[in-house]
Amino acid sequence: MTRTIEVVHSTNKKPKPNADNIAFGKYFSDHMFVMDYSEEKGWYDPRIVPYAPITLEPSAMIFHYGQTVFEGLKAYRTPDDRILLFRPEKNFRRLNLSSERISIPAIDEELALVALKKLIEVEKEWVPALEGNSLYIRPFIIATEPNINLTPANSYQFMMILSPVGSYYKEGIKPVGIYVEDEYTRAVKGGTGTAKTAGNYAAAYKAQERATEKGYSQVLWLDGVEKKFIEEVGSMNVFFKVNGEVITPELNGSILEGVTRMSIIELLKDWGVPVIERRISLEEIYQAYDRGELEEAFGTGTAAVISPVGELNWGQRNMVINNREMGELSRKLYDTLTGIQTGKIEDRYNWTVEV
Amino acid sequence: MTRTIEVVHSTNKKPKPNADNIAFGKYFSDHMFVMDYSEEKGWYDPRIVPYAPITLEPSAMIFHYGQTVFEGLKAYRTPDDRILLFRPEKNFRRLNLSSERISIPAIDEELALVALKKLIEVEKEWVPALEGNSLYIRPFIIATEPNINLTPANSYQFMMILSPVGSYYKEGIKPVGIYVEDEYTRAVKGGTGTAKTAGNYAAAYKAQERATEKGYSQVLWLDGVEKKFIEEVGSMNVFFKVNGEVITPELNGSILEGVTRMSIIELLKDWGVPVIERRISLEEIYQAYDRGELEEAFGTGTAAVISPVGELNWGQRNMVINNREMGELSRKLYDTLTGIQTGKIEDRYNWTVEV
Ligand SMILES: Cc1ncc(COP(=O)(O)O)c(C=O)c1O
Ligand SMILES: Cc1ncc(COP(=O)(O)O)c(C=O)c1O
Repeated sequence: MTRTIEVVHSTNKKPKPNADNIAFGKYFSDHMFVMDYSEEKGWYDPRIVPYAPITLEPSAMIFHYGQTVFEGLKAYRTPDDRILLFRPEKNFRRLNLSSERISIPAIDEELALVALKKLIEVEKEWVPALEGNSLYIRPFIIATEPNINLTPANSYQFMMILSPVGSYYKEGIKPVGIYVEDEYTRAVKGGTGTAKTAGNYAAAYKAQERATEKGYSQVLWLDGVEKKFIEEVGSMNVFFKVNGEVITPELNGSILEGVTRMSIIELLKDWGVPVIERRISLEEIYQAYDRGELEEAFGTGTAAVISPVGELNWGQRNMVINNREMGELSRKLYDTLTGIQTGKIEDRYNWTVEV
Repeated sequence: MTRTIEVVHSTNKKPKPNADNIAFGKYFSDHMFVMDYSEEKGWYDPRIVPYAPITLEPSAMIFHYGQTVFEGLKAYRTPDDRILLFRPEKNFRRLNLSSERISIPAIDEELALVALKKLIEVEKEWVPALEGNSLYIRPFIIATEPNINLTPANSYQFMMILSPVGSYYKEGIKPVGIYVEDEYTRAVKGGTGTAKTAGNYAAAYKAQERATEKGYSQVLWLDGVEKKFIEEVGSMNVFFKVNGEVITPELNGSILEGVTRMSIIELLKDWGVPVIERRISLEEIYQAYDRGELEEAFGTGTAAVISPVGELNWGQRNMVINNREMGELSRKLYDTLTGIQTGKIEDRYNWTVEV
């Protein structure tokens, strides 16, 4: 890594939002990281600059053909005032995998990590101190070429913006009700489900709307082919504990490989808890429930870390899981992961990266 | 329709591109139509303004979650110097159907048509006179709210931009070679295939890349579930003439309903040519080919109108259709449709709208 990252400091510092009650996704720090791509130069001019609007031609490809990918990770402040990132190299790896699917040129993952650390150093005051709060990091790439011909762009911009966020669980962890979506499809083999790309997300709003109307907080997605096999929950991966064994859908070509998911699998293996990645039918989960063997269910993702499922609804069939309480294993996973992320528990896995 | 559309004239007129050789999608006229949406006001402030860049926050939802839809249609100059649109109300209808799928608020379709006519009046010099050239119209909507929370936006912008385009067939119509894609999937039932939304298009680049590498010009898409049934060709609908009968995939929840497709079906019915919309397996087409009954195949869309298929390749199985020549029916459809569009043939169907 030889490239230097220029820093232009902002002279107009914004007030920080009230730490007790930060709405997700609305506040952004004073600086951002930007890097451009052209066919001739490749990725060039990595720089940290004041947070500012983007100006693009109306014909910029991002507005027409969806060539864009993103990531989401967090920086945490430890009790002894250090700042930690959680497995950030996995996010840049995944960003490049997403880009590959969407025909976007790969970035230098090491440079991206160096840049992120530098950006957070510049913005260290924006990493909240209040327990449960954190600094959400949003790397993203957009196709900027002004051309509505249907072909991959020859110019892109890679950016990282930072947003302080409140605790996902301000009132303690409450298991949520989930609604099985059997009409809308999130992703299908051969599609873009394995990539974190914009089109997957807006496409999911209709199903979320329906879940909300019916009084559930999120959607359980089934496979797009047979509508029988479990894929994800909202925008989280999903795990079930059945008769002492933990199962989660395998990486089948349509689900996203979560960093939280991979960390949980590693933790469970380390703890000697049986954990299996395989195809899981919804029917199988109902049968385990009927036999009294469905012990816990939870979603996993950067935002919530662990989101216990208290109820699962599939038309006439309804399950109340673990009496709508957070399970013992879910709790242990949550405490361990958040403990490592915030530096309260020793990081035996070398997952955290100090800024 | 009572709303007035304000017009701000550009003082800086651009030169027009050389009519003999206009690259698709790179040139834009001097003005554009813009209209904003907010939750409080609904769609407001419809206006024609000088063509100019868009400025958005880096957190604008369009950059993250893909809430965007678009359309594509053309304005044609007739030999007696009138300007015609081809079934533009169908495009605004489809825009709203796409928006519905992507949780974008509907626009007033009548207002959009009035606005488009007014915009083209202002830009009438941009409608090319050279035979085969036309003015491509790109209406699109983007989510503008600066918020990375995963939820439908509360602000949007609707725009229409105009791009002069050259003839699709500068060297006469040549049937193309098509490659059957059996790994990547364009769309699946319950997904977004019926909507003209950005995410569908970037997702198709990988397959197009592979087709190009193998020497074919476009991809034939199969259904996402069984990978057996024919859906579309590139970004066109597809028709086959088998033993005197014309067949085309039915509107099955994953293909886009093309305006060219619907016009062709209406023409054929009017001509007394049997035309059937139904599920079509690729196997069936090969069998018809083996029996010597596959007479013609063609894609249909606004850009090419009719694109005859001269070769269809599916791994080891290869078909050369109609001796790589344009079929009689394809030719008649092409001549009739382009004749109506450009005012050279009487429009008995009331399809054209004069500006
Ligand atoms: C579709 C989808 N699945 C799963 C996840 C969970 O991934 P991670 O644990 O890396 O946050 C996310 C969120 O990033 C997601 O968008
Ligand atoms: C996916 C797809 N299918 C088919 C079509 C053809 O539609 P139309 O005839 O309205 O141009 C288009 C182009 O608009 C398209 O994008």
